[in-house]
Order: sequence, then structure tokens, then C-alpha cells
Amino acid sequence: MKALVYRGPGDKALEDRPKPQIQAPGDAVVRITKTTICGTDLHILKGDVPTCAPGRILGHEGVGVVDSVGAGVTAFRAGDRVLISCISSCGKCDYCRRGMYSHCTTGGWILGNEIDGTQAEFVRIPHADTSLYPIPEGADEDALVMLSDILPTGFECGVLNGKVSPGSTVAIVGSGPIGLAALLTAQFYSPAEIILIDLDDNRLEVARRFGATHTINSADGKAAEKVKALTGGRGVDAAIEAVGVPATFQLCQDLVAPGGVIANIGVHGAKVELHLERLWSQNISITTRLVDTVTTPMLLKTVQAKKIDATRLITHRFRLDQILEAYETFGHAADTHALKVLIEA
Amino acid sequence: MKALVYRGPGDKALEDRPKPQIQAPGDAVVRITKTTICGTDLHILKGDVPTCAPGRILGHEGVGVVDSVGAGVTAFRAGDRVLISCISSCGKCDYCRRGMYSHCTTGGWILGNEIDGTQAEFVRIPHADTSLYPIPEGADEDALVMLSDILPTGFECGVLNGKVSPGSTVAIVGSGPIGLAALLTAQFYSPAEIILIDLDDNRLEVARRFGATHTINSADGKAAEKVKALTGGRGVDAAIEAVGVPATFQLCQDLVAPGGVIANIGVHGAKVELHLERLWSQNISITTRLVDTVTTPMLLKTVQAKKIDATRLITHRFRLDQILEAYETFGHAADTHALKVLIEA
Amino acid sequence: MKALVYRGPGDKALEDRPKPQIQAPGDAVVRITKTTICGTDLHILKGDVPTCAPGRILGHEGVGVVDSVGAGVTAFRAGDRVLISCISSCGKCDYCRRGMYSHCTTGGWILGNEIDGTQAEFVRIPHADTSLYPIPEGADEDALVMLSDILPTGFECGVLNGKVSPGSTVAIVGSGPIGLAALLTAQFYSPAEIILIDLDDNRLEVARRFGATHTINSADGKAAEKVKALTGGRGVDAAIEAVGVPATFQLCQDLVAPGGVIANIGVHGAKVELHLERLWSQNISITTRLVDTVTTPMLLKTVQAKKIDATRLITHRFRLDQILEAYETFGHAADTHALKVLIEA
Amino acid sequence: MKALVYRGPGDKALEDRPKPQIQAPGDAVVRITKTTICGTDLHILKGDVPTCAPGRILGHEGVGVVDSVGAGVTAFRAGDRVLISCISSCGKCDYCRRGMYSHCTTGGWILGNEIDGTQAEFVRIPHADTSLYPIPEGADEDALVMLSDILPTGFECGVLNGKVSPGSTVAIVGSGPIGLAALLTAQFYSPAEIILIDLDDNRLEVARRFGATHTINSADGKAAEKVKALTGGRGVDAAIEAVGVPATFQLCQDLVAPGGVIANIGVHGAKVELHLERLWSQNISITTRLVDTVTTPMLLKTVQAKKIDATRLITHRFRLDQILEAYETFGHAADTHALKVLIEA
Repeated sequence: MKALVYRGPGDKALEDRPKPQIQAPGDAVVRITKTTICGTDLHILKGDVPTCAPGRILGHEGVGVVDSVGAGVTAFRAGDRVLISCISSCGKCDYCRRGMYSHCTTGGWILGNEIDGTQAEFVRIPHADTSLYPIPEGADEDALVMLSDILPTGFECGVLNGKVSPGSTVAIVGSGPIGLAALLTAQFYSPAEIILIDLDDNRLEVARRFGATHTINSADGKAAEKVKALTGGRGVDAAIEAVGVPATFQLCQDLVAPGGVIANIGVHGAKVELHLERLWSQNISITTRLVDTVTTPMLLKTVQAKKIDATRLITHRFRLDQILEAYETFGHAADTHALKVLIEA
Repeated sequence: MKALVYRGPGDKALEDRPKPQIQAPGDAVVRITKTTICGTDLHILKGDVPTCAPGRILGHEGVGVVDSVGAGVTAFRAGDRVLISCISSCGKCDYCRRGMYSHCTTGGWILGNEIDGTQAEFVRIPHADTSLYPIPEGADEDALVMLSDILPTGFECGVLNGKVSPGSTVAIVGSGPIGLAALLTAQFYSPAEIILIDLDDNRLEVARRFGATHTINSADGKAAEKVKALTGGRGVDAAIEAVGVPATFQLCQDLVAPGGVIANIGVHGAKVELHLERLWSQNISITTRLVDTVTTPMLLKTVQAKKIDATRLITHRFRLDQILEAYETFGHAADTHALKVLIEA
Repeated sequence: MKALVYRGPGDKALEDRPKPQIQAPGDAVVRITKTTICGTDLHILKGDVPTCAPGRILGHEGVGVVDSVGAGVTAFRAGDRVLISCISSCGKCDYCRRGMYSHCTTGGWILGNEIDGTQAEFVRIPHADTSLYPIPEGADEDALVMLSDILPTGFECGVLNGKVSPGSTVAIVGSGPIGLAALLTAQFYSPAEIILIDLDDNRLEVARRFGATHTINSADGKAAEKVKALTGGRGVDAAIEAVGVPATFQLCQDLVAPGGVIANIGVHGAKVELHLERLWSQNISITTRLVDTVTTPMLLKTVQAKKIDATRLITHRFRLDQILEAYETFGHAADTHALKVLIEA
Repeated sequence: MKALVYRGPGDKALEDRPKPQIQAPGDAVVRITKTTICGTDLHILKGDVPTCAPGRILGHEGVGVVDSVGAGVTAFRAGDRVLISCISSCGKCDYCRRGMYSHCTTGGWILGNEIDGTQAEFVRIPHADTSLYPIPEGADEDALVMLSDILPTGFECGVLNGKVSPGSTVAIVGSGPIGLAALLTAQFYSPAEIILIDLDDNRLEVARRFGATHTINSADGKAAEKVKALTGGRGVDAAIEAVGVPATFQLCQDLVAPGGVIANIGVHGAKVELHLERLWSQNISITTRLVDTVTTPMLLKTVQAKKIDATRLITHRFRLDQILEAYETFGHAADTHALKVLIEA
């Protein structure tokens, strides 16, 4: 089968690989019909993710059709249309029982990382009963690809951890795909203001179309000041960090109100400074989270009920044999204005 | 009247001062019967608290008897025995309505800081109806002095923010008075383990008597390692920071389990490093809080029901005219083994 | 001044009454600019509310302008435009500190019940600092009249108690003003389905315009069956009772899903049967609540941010001297299709 | 093998039965080392539980040793010592993912009810990975038998649903085994008062030894009055119903404070009257719950940490071949003073 393989830093190729097989009773093999590329895949390609060894098929998102299942799988059978979660969860370990699937002792984020992933014709999914979701009759499968990772990540790490609530004030620092996923799902809770902050005017324009009440280009270094002006000097109830560098974390510290939350979605590659000498008395919380995808059933319902149009995140479409081109497009988002690129079998 | 006055960095004196008067309809004047000294008072004396100007009467803890009340006070009258909260709250502003009394727009921590405090024969208490508490019939007033600040601080900033719960594992870094207050109140929730960490063996011995299940002297730099060994390699559910320096915050980062909380009680004077490059995926929370004293009514009930013996924190007793000696004793706790020193009228 | 007075069961009149005076330091006198009539006023007029004695000026909703304040009032002064809460709260008692203003030991629902109310040119408001809210610059005051009672009641007793959440399924039994208030505010949380149930097709038509995803006329006794059909046999996550009679409470028991909530808003006049022989194992909650108006600040923000158009509840308008006619209109809602009638000075 | 078989209303026998076999990949067969009898077993024997057909082996509690496992079981193997949960949960269905194992679509309370149970030499456990718990090294297995059902039932249905918290006031109506289990686990949260109410002075005496702060014999019909006297006229924050008849539910309605909870543990056989005409405005919650055993891991930790001595519930001991005598003893608890009877292989 065709598969996009990571061959070492800076090196990827569309290779021919053997079709995966059932290895454990809980496994399923899924024929991929639609997949996509994540910012994390770009990190891997830079060599930044040591758990991912050369030779790995990338990809942790997608929908497809069950091809075969192991003896212990009870919830799915061949022919079922399924949504693949980026997080594999056994449903049995202490972490899974607490809803912290991201730390599943035999799962977590392994797809396209420690085991072969979804940017291929077929993929093996461990713990299939608790890592796949049935696709409801009549669902828009393009939208569901956004449920593999980006929407639960924006929602769980940003919106839920940020305790977004009716009438509250939210700032999202970073208007890329993940910040926009937080923006879309924050609206489930009817906050009074959602302020998007970025350096790229195009992305801010998208944010405005997606429901931001205010946008700020932070290039002039005055974003915190402007947020304070918008909030009567108080700051925001939720500062959602959707970039992952020290400067944006610093900005979040500068604009969070007393009693507020800094919710980190960004994947940080370096330590940051935390100004406890000022914040110790500010009654704030700072949260981190690798997405658990524990809200996938809830998000499926909101998509089915048309409370959110997840397809708005899809800007480009490719066939699997064009995946190198898809990477080009996604990797140059500033020029191409790509958000999510859909890759279809 | 006699009063302990901050005269500038390193300089304090027991002075004669005029008795305070009612200034606003919500004020009460209280005759102090018992007060105490807080670590924060020592910070002020070092010149570390810029909001506290020379000439200020120190002290934000104590019990007493109402001497007079303003026209707007309805809950108290002269002769009532009262507990004084270290936090003044108007009960009306947005923050007070949310239970965040520490950020009351006309109150907060002002006693012995921005207005004259309790280390005196009399004190003026603004917003008396919502900043004083009636002393229940038959209560042990020594114990109640511990309810002005230290117990709610340990409980709210450490135990509640740390989400201590039955069967959970807690580490408290710092076995001084505030760490011990967290230790005492953590036991309300029956955690399986409470590990106290300090550099001083005497304080650790006290911790053991107060209910710590394990103690670790961190002098050898192996505290995190030992905590991991005690918790099957996982770390603790709640790491309570009760010192306020970068090294102890670092230790908390090293010993918190995935899904856990770092609850800061310590008053930090410098920024710290936050290792988001490791913690971004660990599903943790970091909290800060200036005590709100919103749990004072609950704590009063637990003291009255003998669920906690707050007097165990009291190691020394002085009369108000001996307060300079009391400061000496409290300021040299390593030698005197002082926890809280009670100062009686 | 003119005032609508309850003179005993079935008897009301527009009388001339003396203008109210400040009686306590916390009082304010407010000149009413807009008020309205509540279903509870009709209950009083039937003689069903024993706490309300003949001679009482009715009304517990409205907006106005502060005319004078007592010596203890600090948050308002003459000339301030204010929203009047139907619940008076002292902000000091145990219940108020817990956010349960409805049970304030010196307040609660007293306006137009135990003390004279708002259907008059002026009203005296006790505990003014914590029972009035400043009207934001540029606010639509018609909308704010809906914040005195009906919106917080629908929201707190129905939506919050019902734990309405994204993707959840909600049934509201009763499509009168209070059921519609629950419908409007339920949408803050993006539930997947909101099913309105009533006997009146006109009200159901209104519900559909206000955002109901499904409506059911329960005249044929098959409402529970239809709800089960809509929910895959499971029932609803939240059954909001907005009528207050045994039959509608029974219906809620028939359509709540395992793990769901029956949230009572209705004012019940008789005991009901609770089928614990079936429900004991269904992991449900049944809640009751007299509105606390603790969410008024949050609701104000949502109205200001245009997350909700509260004026949609207003169907008729009258001047204060037409208030008897307003009562006629409101009292015959089946014919007049009245929801809320606005009465302006 | 020997097994206690329900043969129809009023008829039970110790029969010889074939040893159970693995039927599905997720099954385990467990050799029972210790089991016990539940009040529910007596209900079945009266013919009150229609889901339990004659011929059924009774029992849903116990510990044992894994004898064999199906191909899909990954967490256990032959020889492992295990605690058996009374609730079988698949860990995969919507209810299990929400922690509502009691409503597992292919499990729930089926042991000794819809499938053969634990009062036998061997038992087949479906969904073994998520329905068995490993017994920690050195654990007291007698204590763990109390974790199969009675402790999680008292804790989840009574204490957690009742929101027992530090300083709160709790009444437990019914001082039988389940009320006492609630009493023991309520102490995890340090309530100020726990009032036990029963008709049997012996059971009240046991309650006092187990930590009740007050006991009331309700034979004189004055229990509510006495509770009001103990609580300053207010009533209790949590009224835990541990009997399951209309009179005790009525008592709970009479003694719950505004803002409180009535938490039902009792298995009700008849409908009750709910006085909404009085309670509609009292801001209370009424909860029901079939135990989910979702807290079993937490409870295991508290038992291991000696926060609770579960063996105090064990009053009598028998061998499996004496199980008819054990039923006699347990069925005449008023005379024998039996709480839980331990049956050992």
C-alpha cells in the first residue's frame, strides 16, 4: 500500500509498504478514506519528536472503513465506517478510567509516532473498541476528520481548561488552525468577547469570519495593553495559548485577569519564565494538557446537531498520491493560507 | 494605646498611638484580646512590601471585642466577641460576589499593610459586617486566632486549590507554619499519603506529629527521587508549594504526577522557570491565590466540631508589651522552634 | 403616587399611595421607569400566596432611577439608573455568602410580597447595594426588565440546575414565559436538542421561533413516547419543569434519561407522586430552586454582548395608568398570546 | 461445585452445579475465596426482583483467585488475586465512558441476578478487565469483600451524592449495614455532625461506635423535630436515605435544610409523596443512584492507607457449606445483630 514515511529529519517519501495486520485481540485494521496533516507532523519532520523513529508512517487523524478486527473487538466489525481518534486508549488503566486517555499506559499519542499512522491506505488501530467511533448515518465525513485531533484539542486544552462560560472574556493567542479550533468551540459557551491575537492579518481576518469579536495584530508589542483597554483594565478570564513559544506565554501572563486561567494548547519546545513574583496573589490557574479526546462523543453530537461547522477549517483538498504536495501547501501556510488540508483516498 | 509600628526597613517599635475611630458607616473598632505575628510581617520589616509605608501599625490577625460600630453595621454591636479576618471584603463588588474577597475593590489585604493593623490595643475594621465573624459560645479563642489567616491560607491556597481528596497523594514542600496549616487541613479530605519536605529536621518531626505520613529532608537534593519511589514512579496528585523560592517551585515541578496540581501558597519574590517543554503534555494545573478567607465559616465549624486542633500551631505566648520579644522569638524560628506566637492583651 | 394594590383574593386596584421613604441605612428609593407583571402576581391575586397580605403594592421586577439612598449605601447615588432584582439580598448572611440570595435571612423574595413592590411610581429597595445593579451605558432597558426575574429564573432553576451542556438533549415542559426564558438561556450552552412541550400550539410556534429544535403538543398524552422516539429510546439529559402541576412533573419523570436531571422551575401548589420504585436505580437528580439572581451580572454581560435578545419576550406595552388593562391582557394569555407585558412610567 | 441457588420465592438451596466456563473473550473465571450476603439477596428470595429467575446462583460480592481468562483479557491472568465488583462494566459504552457503570449496556448489576453469582466455588465474570480489581500486596482480604458493593454504595449513593463536606451536617436515616457504610465513608470528608436515625437502639449504639456524633431513635415520631433542635432550626445539609420506604423518605423531606440534598441509597419498592408544594422554593436536590463502583480504586487506596477499617462491618463468619446458616443469621439481624456475614471457601 502507499504510505507517507518519515525517513529522518527533513526527509519524507511516499513509499510502498505492506498492509498492516491484526497483532493483538483488540486491534482493528482500518482502510483510510480521508486523512489530514497536523502541525505535529511538521515537528516530527524537523526531527523535534524523539519518540518518532525514521521509517515511521505519519498521521494520527482520519476516517475510514473497518477492514478487519481482532478476536477481542466487540464494538466494530468489517465494513463499519469509523472516526479514528488521535489518542489510543485501552479504557482499562487508571488514567483511562479517569478520562485521561492521553496518558493511557498502553496507548496515548502513539499513532504516527510510536506506531505507524493514518497517512496511508490502511492503518492498524490498537484498542479499537475505545479508540474508534462509529460514524453516524448521514454524517459529513469531511467534518469528522476535524474530530480526530484538532477540535478536541482546541476544545479540551483551550476551552474546557479555560473554563469558558457565558458572558466571560476570552483571548486566544495564535490564530492558526488550533487557535481557530478553540475559537469555534469556545462559542459553545457564549462568552461575551473572544479576542484573537496573531502576527498575521490574514489569519485574523479568518478569525473574524469564524466568530472572533475582536482581533489584535501583536506585531507592535501592544497586545496586552489593547486587551486591557478592551476589558476595562481587568484582563481576560481565559487566556488560551495556541502557539507554544515563550513570547506568547509571556503575553498570556500579561493579559490574564485576577481569577482567570492561562490554558496552554501550544506544544512548547523550551522552558518559559513564570512571573510568580507578580502572579502569586492573582488567583490564577495555568493548565497544560495533551488532548484526551474524552469529549469526542460530545463533539460528535454538536457536529451532528450543526452547532458547529467543522468543515470551515478545510482550505485545500488532495488525493493520497498528492500528499507531498499537500505537505508543501500545509507547510507554507503563510503563503497558501492553508488551515487544514484534506487528503482523500 | 500601645501599638507595634513599622518605621522603615529593619526598624520597628512599640509606640503610643491614638485609639482608632469610626471613619465610615461600615466600620467597627475592635479591642484586640489576642493577636499573632505572620511571616508576612517579617517581609514588611525587611522592606519587601512596598504597599506598606513606614508609620503603619502591623498585624492582620486576631480576636477581640467590638468597641463601637458605624451606622451601617447591622451584624455586630459593641461587646460582641469577634474573629478578625486578615482580608477585608465589602461583600458587594464583583470580586466579593464571586467569593474572591482577596481582590475586593475596596478591601483585600489592607490590614497592617495599607491601613493600621491588629498588633495594638484597638483596630479599625472596614466593611465590618463582612470582615468580622461572631465567636461562637464556648469557643477556644486561641484556636480562632489561627483562623484569621494561617488556616484559611493553608486550606484555600493549598488544600482546596490542590484538590486534595480521599485516597490521593499529597506533597507539601515547606514545613513551616503555613505548610503545617496545609497539613492539618489536608486531613479533612483523608488523602492516603501526605509527604512533608523541608531542610529542617525539627520541623519535619513536628510534621510527623501533625499527621504527615512521610517526611523527607531535601538537603541532599534527592527529594523528587524519593517522592517518586514512594509513589510507584508516578509522583503526587497535589504538590503544595509552601516556601516561595525558585528551588521549591522547581521541586514541585519535579514531583507532580500527570493530572496533578501544583498549588502555590508561598509568597514569591522572584520569577521562576516553568518547564513547559516537559509539562505541556502532563495535564497539570498550577494555581496561585491570595487567601480569600471565603472558607472561614466552614473552618469555624470544623474547629468547633473538633475536627482540627488549631492550637497545636501555637508554640509561644507573650503579652502585648512583650511584642518585641515575640518578634525575636518568631524571627529566629530555626533556633526557637517557634511556629505561631500568641500575643495577648 | 399611583400604585397597583392587592386588596384581597380577586381584588386589585390602582390606588394613590404615599411615596416610600428610606427606613434603614441600606435602603434606596427608586423611581420606576419600567416594570412588568409576573405569573406569581396572578397567584397572589387568587389568594394563593399567604405571605402577601391585602394592602400590598405588587410587583418585583423593573428598572428605574435612584431617587434617594440611606447612609449605608455606597454603590449607588441619586440619579443612577438601576436594574431591580426580584430578590433582596443582604450580602452578609450565611445564605448570601453561599450565593443563595433567595434564602437571605433578611431578604429573599419580599418585594411585592412582604413589602411594597415595583408596580408603582416609586419603590423602596432594602439592601440596595446588593439588590440593585447599575445599568450599563447604552443598554436596552426594555431587555433589562427581563433580568429582574424571568431570565435568571429560567436560567438558574432550569438551565444551570439542569446542567445543560454542549451536545446534550433538553426537554422543557411548559412553553409559557418562564419555559421560553429557559429556552433562550439554554442556548448559551449549545445543546443538540431542545424539545418544547405544551398544550397550546401558539406557544409551541413561538418556541420554534425562539430556537426549539422540536415541539410536542402533549394533548394526546403521548409526549413521553414521542420524546423517547426522538432520543433513541433513552430520554433527555435535562427535563425542565416549567408549569408546576402534578401532571407535568409526572411527564418529566417519564422522559428523563438515566443520569439525567429533572429541574423544577414551576411553582408547585400540591404534592406530587415520585416514582422511586422505578427511579431509585436511574442515577437521576431532581432539583428545586427559588431564583437567587446570583447570575444577574453574568446575564447582564450576555445581554450586553447580544448573545440573547431578551426583548423577544415582550409582546405588549402599557403605561402605568393602564396597568389594570395590562393585567387583563397578561391574565388571558391564551387569547392575547401575551408573554411579558411592559409597563412604562 | 457447591453453589447457593435461588429456586423461587422463599426457596433456596446449596446445590451442586457445574463449574462455569469462559464464554466470551472478555470473561474470567474466578475461584471464590470469600463472599458475603447482601440485603438485595433477601429481596430476591422474597420474589421481589423480577430480573432474577429461579435457578440462579446468588451473590454479587467477593474476592478470589483468577482461574482462567478469555483471549481478550489483558489485565489479569490465572493465579491473580482479585476483588470482584458487584457491577460488571464493559468500559466501552457511552454510560461506562461517563463513569455510569451501573447502566453499562452489556453489564450493570447482572451478577447473581441475570447471570450466576459469587455464592459458589467459582464464578464467571464478564468484562473482566474492567470488572475485577487486582488485590494489592498485603491487603486484608476480609476488608476488600466490603469493597464489592457495600462501601461504594454507601459512598457513591450517599456520601458523594450528598455532597458531604468539611463542617457540614449530615443525617443518615437507617443504621443498617448500608447506613453504616455511609457513616464510615462520610468521615472521609470531616463533616461537623453525623446524626444516625433508626428504630433499633442496638444499631444506633453501633453507629455511635462507628463515629456518629448523635443518634436518634425515631420510634416516637419526633426525629425531624430533634434534628431541627440539633441544627439551630435549619435542618441538615445532607439527608441520606438508607432504608427505602415512604416513611423514611418523608423524614428526609422534613429534615433537609434549604440548599441541602436528599441522597437516596435505599432500594424503594413503592412510590412516595414528594412535597413540592413546600420544597419547590427550598433549593434542594434529590438524588438516586444504583452504585457505579467507579470509586473502587479510590476506596481501595483509602482502605490500604488505613483511613477506614472496613472489617468493622463484619460480625459473623461462616464456611461456604454453612451458607444456609449464614442466611439465617443475616436474615434475622434484629436478633443476631448481624451486619455483614463473611463466607469463606
